[in-house]
Amino acid sequence: MARQQHAEAAGAHLGGTIRRTVLASGLRVVSEDVPGSSTFSVGFFVGVGSRHESEHLHGASHFLEHVLFKGTRRRGPEEISAAIEQVGGDLNAYTAKEHTCFYARVLAEDAPVACEVITDMLTASLVRADDLESEREVILEEIAMHADEPGEVAADLVAERLFAGHPLARSVIGSRASIGAITREQVVGFWKRHYRPSSLVVAAAGRVDHDALVGQLSVFDQLPPQPAARVQQAPSRRHESGVGVVRRPTEQCTVSMAFPGFSTFDDRRYPLGLLAAVLGGGMSSRLFVEVRERRGLAYTIDAAETAWSDAGLFSVDWQCARERVEQIAGLVRDELAAVARNGISPDELARAKSQLRGQTVLGYEGPGARMSRLGTAELVGDTRTIAELLDRYDAVTGEQVTALARELFGSAPYLAVVGPAPDRRRLQALLRGWGSAAAPAA
Amino acid sequence: MARQQHAEAAGAHLGGTIRRTVLASGLRVVSEDVPGSSTFSVGFFVGVGSRHESEHLHGASHFLEHVLFKGTRRRGPEEISAAIEQVGGDLNAYTAKEHTCFYARVLAEDAPVACEVITDMLTASLVRADDLESEREVILEEIAMHADEPGEVAADLVAERLFAGHPLARSVIGSRASIGAITREQVVGFWKRHYRPSSLVVAAAGRVDHDALVGQLSVFDQLPPQPAARVQQAPSRRHESGVGVVRRPTEQCTVSMAFPGFSTFDDRRYPLGLLAAVLGGGMSSRLFVEVRERRGLAYTIDAAETAWSDAGLFSVDWQCARERVEQIAGLVRDELAAVARNGISPDELARAKSQLRGQTVLGYEGPGARMSRLGTAELVGDTRTIAELLDRYDAVTGEQVTALARELFGSAPYLAVVGPAPDRRRLQALLRGWGSAAAPAA
Repeated sequence: MARQQHAEAAGAHLGGTIRRTVLASGLRVVSEDVPGSSTFSVGFFVGVGSRHESEHLHGASHFLEHVLFKGTRRRGPEEISAAIEQVGGDLNAYTAKEHTCFYARVLAEDAPVACEVITDMLTASLVRADDLESEREVILEEIAMHADEPGEVAADLVAERLFAGHPLARSVIGSRASIGAITREQVVGFWKRHYRPSSLVVAAAGRVDHDALVGQLSVFDQLPPQPAARVQQAPSRRHESGVGVVRRPTEQCTVSMAFPGFSTFDDRRYPLGLLAAVLGGGMSSRLFVEVRERRGLAYTIDAAETAWSDAGLFSVDWQCARERVEQIAGLVRDELAAVARNGISPDELARAKSQLRGQTVLGYEGPGARMSRLGTAELVGDTRTIAELLDRYDAVTGEQVTALARELFGSAPYLAVVGPAPDRRRLQALLRGWGSAAAPAA
Repeated sequence: MARQQHAEAAGAHLGGTIRRTVLASGLRVVSEDVPGSSTFSVGFFVGVGSRHESEHLHGASHFLEHVLFKGTRRRGPEEISAAIEQVGGDLNAYTAKEHTCFYARVLAEDAPVACEVITDMLTASLVRADDLESEREVILEEIAMHADEPGEVAADLVAERLFAGHPLARSVIGSRASIGAITREQVVGFWKRHYRPSSLVVAAAGRVDHDALVGQLSVFDQLPPQPAARVQQAPSRRHESGVGVVRRPTEQCTVSMAFPGFSTFDDRRYPLGLLAAVLGGGMSSRLFVEVRERRGLAYTIDAAETAWSDAGLFSVDWQCARERVEQIAGLVRDELAAVARNGISPDELARAKSQLRGQTVLGYEGPGARMSRLGTAELVGDTRTIAELLDRYDAVTGEQVTALARELFGSAPYLAVVGPAPDRRRLQALLRGWGSAAAPAA
């Protein structure tokens, strides 16, 4: 059954033993046995998300994820969750642009139950018409909930503009129209087409018996292996500038200033990660100090980068009163221009590296985080260990950070504002003046 | 310096060694050294929160918490956070109704830095007038953010009505008026009055050197011990019924159906915890199954209890379209009436106990959760170990759960709705019919 299996000595950097197995069906299993752990976290990662949907199937991945909780040949919907919850565990799922994940966390002795229940959902769900209709209503409620969350609305608007014309531009959740129109046949077809063993990664961490885990997954060998679905490539990086406003009668505006970033394997992500830390990675970061500490203009402000297999973005995000949007946007522009012009100090660079190293070790303390990293990395064929990633960050020079900042901030960003509408003209004028403010000093 | 010190063998139930020390100043130190851990979580818990504020100082605890990040005799505001962030750690704080907590999480070798920085903030802050003004602006932004979060608004409304006339009724964050009016002298006075060693608990978990930790805290011995501040007792449990609506132009309504609950040490919290699990503790719970699984009326619904030192509450919470508020409220009423009339099955009781046990072990896996439990329990003199709590839950009978449900649900609840206003009269009619629906069968 197992055609490849090896222990990874490099797993030692975080204390666990990492093992990887590829089944005859193509299903990949990767696990980390963490000494001293008494719990078991497992995730079934399927390589399908909103970017793989055609326009009339917008939201199908997420709809399907919901429907797979509604009952199998063996279990009613209540029995699915009850099987995990009655041992005190959690069972849940999420859908992203490039993958869907079903996950559970249980005491180590309940590992077989967790794996069996998720396997059952993924392979033997009934997708009854009644259940589908009831779940359609739930998703319409979720769409309404989503519309009430300004941060989600701003993120959708940014994706819509930075990836215009490409499936990455569409939201994960779908629209009222698309969710209203999707049929049972389409959902089942989507499931059969995309939930193939060769697109599936099972990742586990905590107290893990790797061989027993692999043995439990043999049921997937019975499914016919199918070729991978085609993926539409993202358009090349573009500088979509401008101001987008979604009016909401809220007290505050939620603002996202976004720049096109880099894809998962792009080496520029190393200087970008350090730049994001210096600019907006915590309470001692440049933007937090300028906007909140020195001026008290906002409760918080941060900067972060996101990467997909062939595209990415970098954004600075904050919430503030309507009358402060322009002032803060101006301060952010000046700060980004300053870093593009003058770079960062050796001391800032050293602190950012130390910060990233500590955050990484702290961030992977729990089995859930380790499982998640193992699964998402395996899914896209990312074989870099965390130790390797940290070494790459350590090797970044100040010049590389400056060069990256010039490339990234040389053109005006896209500014998404959700809330009581600010003065759009003044914001547009601010963006028009971008080039001169961000230009390197003569 | 240390006048009492002992190792608690009972710490073994979760794998760590718990030690407790009371310093001459009255400051209590409690720690759990977790084998295999390489991180250190520490929290400084001060026994003061919004319930200790007089009306004109509404929000002072939270304002003070913010201001203590603004600089000490030794450090500027950026140096406070930078000291922790440059080693990759987190430093933050929160304020609740009964306590304020400053906490950090770092790699184990950075434990001394984390403790020293927080000690510096709590004992040597400057509270400069300029910084106070800038932070006042930040809190006004936070109040606006809070007003945009329907769940927070609903929770405030529930507290306002269930604890009317008592400081527990007031929000933690304060009002625009109270925050606008508080002076520097008041903030400093509040700090000096409430941040006394005898009101302070330092809790740590992870890789902890207890003796070194105690040694680091000797600076608090220099502060004069002072008597504890008086606490106004909560009014006796009352059945405040009715419908409260805060209009918000959101897509969904956020609803909280609330009943008066029990204080921290009330033994009825054991059956209440099991009842909350059966009714709304996950996807296999009665309310989730009735409202979402069977009918698709809401994305989620849950039930939870909260306890303070002399009062508590139990609430069922959900979000839904305006036109479904009444239907869901009716379903919830019927389900609560059914449990008051017929109790829960032996199988449900057994599953709830197993669920609570598993959740507890899983919930205390990380050092952060252990630190938090140690600190909050020590602060109120709760000496029960987690193993003892689980034993108490295990001993609950079905009859006790039924009796509790009858007591709790015998009178109509308070219903808080935030969002597009539903038909208030129909909701009031639903509450008026409560008694007959919830009455035990003849």
